[in-house]
Amino acid sequence: MSDKRQQALDYHQFPVPGKISVELTKPAETATDLALAYSPGVAEPVREIAANPEEAYKYTAKGNLVAVISNGSAILGLGNLGPLASKPVMEGKALLFKKFAGLDAIDIEVKHRTVDEFIQTVASIADTFGGINLEDIKAPECFEIERALVEKCNVPVFHDDQHGTAIVTAAGMLNALEIQGKDIRDVIIVCMGAGAAAVACMELLIKCGAQRERIYMLDRKGVIHTRREDLTEHKKLFANNTDRRTLEDALTGADVFVGVSGPDVLPPEALDLMNENPVVFACSNPDPEIKPELALAQRSDIIMATGRSDYPNQVNNVLCFPFIFRGALDVRATDINDDMKVAAVHAIRELAKEPVPDSVIKASGGQELTFGREYIIPKPMDPRLLQRVAKAVAVAAVESGAAQIELPENYLA
Amino acid sequence: MSDKRQQALDYHQFPVPGKISVELTKPAETATDLALAYSPGVAEPVREIAANPEEAYKYTAKGNLVAVISNGSAILGLGNLGPLASKPVMEGKALLFKKFAGLDAIDIEVKHRTVDEFIQTVASIADTFGGINLEDIKAPECFEIERALVEKCNVPVFHDDQHGTAIVTAAGMLNALEIQGKDIRDVIIVCMGAGAAAVACMELLIKCGAQRERIYMLDRKGVIHTRREDLTEHKKLFANNTDRRTLEDALTGADVFVGVSGPDVLPPEALDLMNENPVVFACSNPDPEIKPELALAQRSDIIMATGRSDYPNQVNNVLCFPFIFRGALDVRATDINDDMKVAAVHAIRELAKEPVPDSVIKASGGQELTFGREYIIPKPMDPRLLQRVAKAVAVAAVESGAAQIELPENYLA
Repeated sequence: MSDKRQQALDYHQFPVPGKISVELTKPAETATDLALAYSPGVAEPVREIAANPEEAYKYTAKGNLVAVISNGSAILGLGNLGPLASKPVMEGKALLFKKFAGLDAIDIEVKHRTVDEFIQTVASIADTFGGINLEDIKAPECFEIERALVEKCNVPVFHDDQHGTAIVTAAGMLNALEIQGKDIRDVIIVCMGAGAAAVACMELLIKCGAQRERIYMLDRKGVIHTRREDLTEHKKLFANNTDRRTLEDALTGADVFVGVSGPDVLPPEALDLMNENPVVFACSNPDPEIKPELALAQRSDIIMATGRSDYPNQVNNVLCFPFIFRGALDVRATDINDDMKVAAVHAIRELAKEPVPDSVIKASGGQELTFGREYIIPKPMDPRLLQRVAKAVAVAAVESGAAQIELPENYLA
Repeated sequence: MSDKRQQALDYHQFPVPGKISVELTKPAETATDLALAYSPGVAEPVREIAANPEEAYKYTAKGNLVAVISNGSAILGLGNLGPLASKPVMEGKALLFKKFAGLDAIDIEVKHRTVDEFIQTVASIADTFGGINLEDIKAPECFEIERALVEKCNVPVFHDDQHGTAIVTAAGMLNALEIQGKDIRDVIIVCMGAGAAAVACMELLIKCGAQRERIYMLDRKGVIHTRREDLTEHKKLFANNTDRRTLEDALTGADVFVGVSGPDVLPPEALDLMNENPVVFACSNPDPEIKPELALAQRSDIIMATGRSDYPNQVNNVLCFPFIFRGALDVRATDINDDMKVAAVHAIRELAKEPVPDSVIKASGGQELTFGREYIIPKPMDPRLLQRVAKAVAVAAVESGAAQIELPENYLA
């Protein structure tokens, strides 16, 4: 067994199994404490909430509590291994919610036969939580699931594999294009992959100014075009009225490549087909669509990002999801709408342009972090993300009408 | 607003809303930590669990995690106030699980239309947890719900309002009968109330030796007898072939009264109808079926128990549920079967006969605690309960074949 493998297993097993626990936030030492926490005292908040459901935010943990919910149908890059096998990932996500945003998060793994059964189950338990983070649910089911749950639930529902990825990708992309001197409204974009993340990334880039007809999305069969008859509802949205068929066709004269597909699908020499000063986001993890050293050896005018922490410009969802939930929950948003997502994009983007604290440089390995080709996205360990992103999201929620309460004074200041 | 009411609301609201939080049990400080907790390291335990589901107990928090699940249809003595209003109670239960048995417990409130929908929802998420504590679900639905979930789930399912109450009642009852010089096989029992707790209490007393035909159960219409045609499935089990009709009829010559109904339904003078040296458990909370001071003024030969902490002999579920789950989870029992319940009864019962540590006397208000008429049940603050009850339950699970692993060496010693 490799050292790294054993180290990961040991981390999960010792000194106690797993990564999270439930702890008390109130005293429970004396009989008096227990008479307040449970019978008879607990009857008082029960009555208050029965009279006004909003009081649940005042007297229970709901307002700081996120459910991380999966069916294990698309676990990391490992595929459909079922709900129980996804538990370490969901606990890991809960750990990140706590670590980065102070949110209490608990994983729920759902076994189901039909998509409706999954939707029904999650909708039934949704009121327990302040928000729901859907995770590792495969396409195309994830689209229907998210749409139905957004509709059915009173609390925000967010499929991080779609929208978290899209937000961080868009933030990095806008910065990369700025450095390359390109306008998002003009660029030709090739998107390799047509799954949940791909669709969400392209939709959000469009909201940020990209033109739908200048996007070429490819699935396993090549370019998605209007004459294909095998397209799902979501692929149809990206069917391009074009004669381009292959990856090489698509790349010819393109400005941007976004890979959300699989390892090593982009041959280095294909990069020569792209326009000058291209942007290449190879986000497949752990093995990108093209290795940065190969891409940059082929062309030095590329700005490159990956999903990996050991290369510059890591597209990492943790830059977004803890903070978008923090902001949404803090104003009791009923939804995480497009305005809130775009606000997160710009908050993340702008932070990369600011001087980086020494502590972040140190935690990130010591390399220089100045806005430029090798630093277009903030680092996960940047403590400013919480305040910047959560506040931008909360303000956008208030302004777009999604918030149920006002932004607290001196919010996260 | 009364002081007590305000104190209970303040306890729930400040300094943070609610009573529980989710915390990390593993380091999450460095990029290396995060690479173990989440991608890429987390893929290792995922693969292990996919290959062998039992490994979830090794690499996730599942084995120490209990779900406290309710639909809010029978909240404390408050009735059907719906799932969200039950949240403070379920969080309170989670607090008690942690405080008394070190178990991580999280509340889940379920909104549903049909009983099947509730069952389906809970069964779908059950594998997330090491065990499921059903709570505050009204009769008769609770019987069908528990039966179906025991059948469908791989983890133990326990409706505490039924079985926790029954176990503590039986423990106290066996001791009270011993002191009164009565044999449970001979006594006539009157059970006032025919809900979930009543049925479970009587069934467990029968497992401890009571004779079904010597039990008179009463609902709102009086004695449940074989000529009644309005009986639910569960009431039919207690239909007595008798001419007794009223509470007074039933009490005539009875040895035991168990009240799990409502306040002040037992008039003091009715006690005179009972046999000598009777036992009266008036468990309605907060207001018992008869106040102890009235009962004891009427007859001094009564042994009396209530659900209240301010009288001697409190029948309190917390003497049971944290420890029965502790024992069941520690040997990965698939079920909480009758042998385990009876083992819990005897462990609780026997503890009351032992000398009480000074710390318990102090925590319980300083009164003398010697096995006898005013001390038939241990105190909730008795730290020996954990070891005694959990071990008895775990041993019974192993011996009855419900356990999936052996008892750890020096278990809880």
